[in-house]
Amino acid sequence: MTLMTDYRQSFLGSARARHNRFQDLENTRQWLKSLQEQAEQSVVRVPLAELEQWFFAADTGDLCHRSGKFFSITGLHCSPVARPGAWWEQPVINQPEIGILGILTREFEGIRYFLMQAKMEPGNVNKVQLSPTLQATYSNYSQAHKGRLPPYTQYFLDPAARVITSQLQSETGTRFFRKFNRNILLDLDSDPELLPGFRWLTLFEIQTLMAEDDMVNMDSRSVLSNIAYTSDETDNEGATIFLHSATSSTKGAMHTIDTLRQWLAQMRLKHALDTSLIPLNSVRDWVRDDWGIRHVSRNYFEVAGVRVQASDREVPLWFQPLLRHDGLGLAGFLCAETGGVLHFLLQAKPEPGIVGSVEIGPTVSLFDYQWRSEHVGGVHFLEHFQEPPADAILHSSIQSEEGGRFWALRNRFVVVRMPDAAAIEHPENFAWMTLSQLQQLSQGESLVNSEARTLLACLRLFQ
Amino acid sequence: MTLMTDYRQSFLGSARARHNRFQDLENTRQWLKSLQEQAEQSVVRVPLAELEQWFFAADTGDLCHRSGKFFSITGLHCSPVARPGAWWEQPVINQPEIGILGILTREFEGIRYFLMQAKMEPGNVNKVQLSPTLQATYSNYSQAHKGRLPPYTQYFLDPAARVITSQLQSETGTRFFRKFNRNILLDLDSDPELLPGFRWLTLFEIQTLMAEDDMVNMDSRSVLSNIAYTSDETDNEGATIFLHSATSSTKGAMHTIDTLRQWLAQMRLKHALDTSLIPLNSVRDWVRDDWGIRHVSRNYFEVAGVRVQASDREVPLWFQPLLRHDGLGLAGFLCAETGGVLHFLLQAKPEPGIVGSVEIGPTVSLFDYQWRSEHVGGVHFLEHFQEPPADAILHSSIQSEEGGRFWALRNRFVVVRMPDAAAIEHPENFAWMTLSQLQQLSQGESLVNSEARTLLACLRLFQ
Repeated sequence: MTLMTDYRQSFLGSARARHNRFQDLENTRQWLKSLQEQAEQSVVRVPLAELEQWFFAADTGDLCHRSGKFFSITGLHCSPVARPGAWWEQPVINQPEIGILGILTREFEGIRYFLMQAKMEPGNVNKVQLSPTLQATYSNYSQAHKGRLPPYTQYFLDPAARVITSQLQSETGTRFFRKFNRNILLDLDSDPELLPGFRWLTLFEIQTLMAEDDMVNMDSRSVLSNIAYTSDETDNEGATIFLHSATSSTKGAMHTIDTLRQWLAQMRLKHALDTSLIPLNSVRDWVRDDWGIRHVSRNYFEVAGVRVQASDREVPLWFQPLLRHDGLGLAGFLCAETGGVLHFLLQAKPEPGIVGSVEIGPTVSLFDYQWRSEHVGGVHFLEHFQEPPADAILHSSIQSEEGGRFWALRNRFVVVRMPDAAAIEHPENFAWMTLSQLQQLSQGESLVNSEARTLLACLRLFQ
Repeated sequence: MTLMTDYRQSFLGSARARHNRFQDLENTRQWLKSLQEQAEQSVVRVPLAELEQWFFAADTGDLCHRSGKFFSITGLHCSPVARPGAWWEQPVINQPEIGILGILTREFEGIRYFLMQAKMEPGNVNKVQLSPTLQATYSNYSQAHKGRLPPYTQYFLDPAARVITSQLQSETGTRFFRKFNRNILLDLDSDPELLPGFRWLTLFEIQTLMAEDDMVNMDSRSVLSNIAYTSDETDNEGATIFLHSATSSTKGAMHTIDTLRQWLAQMRLKHALDTSLIPLNSVRDWVRDDWGIRHVSRNYFEVAGVRVQASDREVPLWFQPLLRHDGLGLAGFLCAETGGVLHFLLQAKPEPGIVGSVEIGPTVSLFDYQWRSEHVGGVHFLEHFQEPPADAILHSSIQSEEGGRFWALRNRFVVVRMPDAAAIEHPENFAWMTLSQLQQLSQGESLVNSEARTLLACLRLFQ
């Protein structure tokens, strides 16, 4: 077995690399913004019956693609195990294929760069965001002998590839049924041709862009969340408060990693959900009309049909369903210093599409934040995100969810600092942990949910 | 958050507890053997058309239960991603429900005991084996308000239950499609009523019974594999060579745990399988006749129908399909001392039913050992398991696979000691690790396959 290169040091170096040998950050920002403005992509809502290549299965009412591939919209019945008699039903995206999300990295002059792509997705409010080098599926791979592959696929197929991380992670468990993506970081020693639409960026640049709205897509954030850091404490000029939490050893941590694992295990048992797929036409309280499938209350989301015309895709015109959301969600994280290290309050959050029922999520997460905050009480810690003092906000940005499946689904992603962790009473389904511990738990595959992984990816370690 | 009790010490104490306050081991052995001999269970093979409540779906040919519950036999298409154009197809068990495998434990006079059940399963060659306290599904749970629950279910539903471990683990990935079970160990402080068919046993006793053939079932082994130990090095009389490997810190280990994780990540990428469920009637090279579904070559396995009559089950008569295997499989582990610690050579093994494609498995594992060893070469390290010297065999027993789905599927489980780890050249898809490291990787949920988990459960730490 070859010895593992210490990538942690290399990632830290990239996180403080303000200089990019290819172009400066302002140039990249303008490049991305001009692509967003000039992108030729039209997304027009159409009646569901006009979705070419899609049909409602006669027996189940499921919305399926004629090829039998891609995804389908089916029904889900869900019962919380601990509350006999309680249940709900909803439409869900069923896509048994494993997606591949891969980023190529390499060092130039001692600094690690990440190959990012400016990619259009129909659900993006601003059309184009930074995506991983490769977004594909295994069936794209295994059809390698048949035809055109997405750019850079061959590097991920190379048996000699140096894999830095390769983690199975879940997608949004409130909308997908047991969907997994393989998140890959590769280390190259060759210098591949730089194709149009791709740029080499440092982690410093990516983290800076993530402090802005809607620049870095969900898939990129998921892959980048697998990065672990180590700090040599020698060149920490410009370090933010997050650096120490992301690189700290277990010393100073409120709980051991064993205790956190046991806590999650307990929560996974207590908050287990019994789920089963059911025909879409049997889902109670959801109705279908010509234009969509929606809850009788018009809350939650709507299954809508769109016609997409794009200039830069292999297929210039296609039809597909998208899950449409109104308003803005909230992914809120409370943090506080204790034992000299910044800790975050994470929640053991049940979601019906998660195999293990429960993953680690934000302190507060609400897809329908505006509606809920006006109409519903009883969400733990929500009050801390309603008009927090300006100096307590350590991060605030709007981030988009998967633009290939969701139409304008966006969360405000907020980190609020509290004076004292010990002073905050919390129910048993919450736990304080450092960023480094969250990262360690995330290595276990499908223990940390997509919003919490955004936390790992988004926070700037250097300014 | 309540502080984690140090269960590792308690488990070690149980592993050396030769004395059982309730009955001695010989008594339990005789009890189990007499149940095996006297059990009133008849399993009779019947034509598939006579499986009451089961039917072949008109469009797909899938073998399904009329309730829509339990499991179905469907088809699987599989392509190794790294070998474009290569593929195979096979029948597979599809059971999206998460199973619950739970063992109650508690301390009596300072020694931890495990509540084991003598349970009949139709596929067991000897009818009755030791099973977990509870084998159920979440839908059993969520129907709690409707009727009779399996014994001891209420302990697993208790919100105040002290959960020691609760891990999602895969089932045999060559036969099941993405089947998971939640493996649970609970710590009780009450003394529940002891029902007929149940006994409190120490780990010493269970490990002793696992050195014998077909006494402890697959589900028990899976749950017990989640046990981690710590050694105080004070009372190690009678300790076997396995103890140090199961309790060693990273000191002396050939690789760090980070290196092992990275190795597995690499193997999961390189040996990824692209899988999709297909109609059973479209599976190539498999044929169906009145009595079964089998490969044209008559190798692998056969889907057979059985009528089961049992005296001790809620349902005294039922019909079901079972996967029938001829002959005996092999799960072989090479081990060798290096750095003062016993290391095991584990294989990154691709299996089509595993979400992540690859899990850590035995050095050698063959379901069709006899046939393969006679007819096929090219299996790495197989030669070390063919007539090894007697003093090199550290463990040899026959263990049964899941008797609710497999008919007489059994593996010979062998541990062979080699003189020197460094002298053994191995391909990159093998890695040396200690039992303690294997246990640590197994905490990550679905990283260690069922045969390798048997290794963690089976080996006696004390004699």
